[in-house]
Amino acid sequence: MKLQVIVTLKKDVLDPQGSAIKNSLANMGFKNVENVRQGKIFDLVVKEKNEKEAISKAKQMCEKLLANLTIEDYSIKITKE
Amino acid sequence: MKLQVIVTLKKDVLDPQGSAIKNSLANMGFKNVENVRQGKIFDLVVKEKNEKEAISKAKQMCEKLLANLTIEDYSIKITKE
Repeated sequence: MKLQVIVTLKKDVLDPQGSAIKNSLANMGFKNVENVRQGKIFDLVVKEKNEKEAISKAKQMCEKLLANLTIEDYSIKITKE
Repeated sequence: MKLQVIVTLKKDVLDPQGSAIKNSLANMGFKNVENVRQGKIFDLVVKEKNEKEAISKAKQMCEKLLANLTIEDYSIKITKE
């Protein structure tokens, strides 16, 4: 089963990297970009047939390794059985 | 309009960071993870009402700044009008 995990900074956390990208884009002529936030995406392949079980494991992975819950949020979706 | 840009390594490009995460997960007891690939996600807010125009601009941003087309692929989707 394939899962996609997206980890993004929480809404209220400053994103200096996103700001730098926004500024670079503006300097390159993309003036109508109002905001950029950067996050991470993890494509996981797991040996697991039960969807509920796969998502529950992925949640544990996020909480223990993939995301820093103090400043980041995560979302998980199944992309392929 | 809000756009989501996902940049991932091309299928044939080695992903040492993904491998490291896979190994860490295995060491933490998540033995059934077969593969991990890490990518980047950009949430953009653009001042643009025309969907086609917004996607065309986002493509240019990917090709000029956000993605390294030699080793990375990108995908763009509109997440909010």
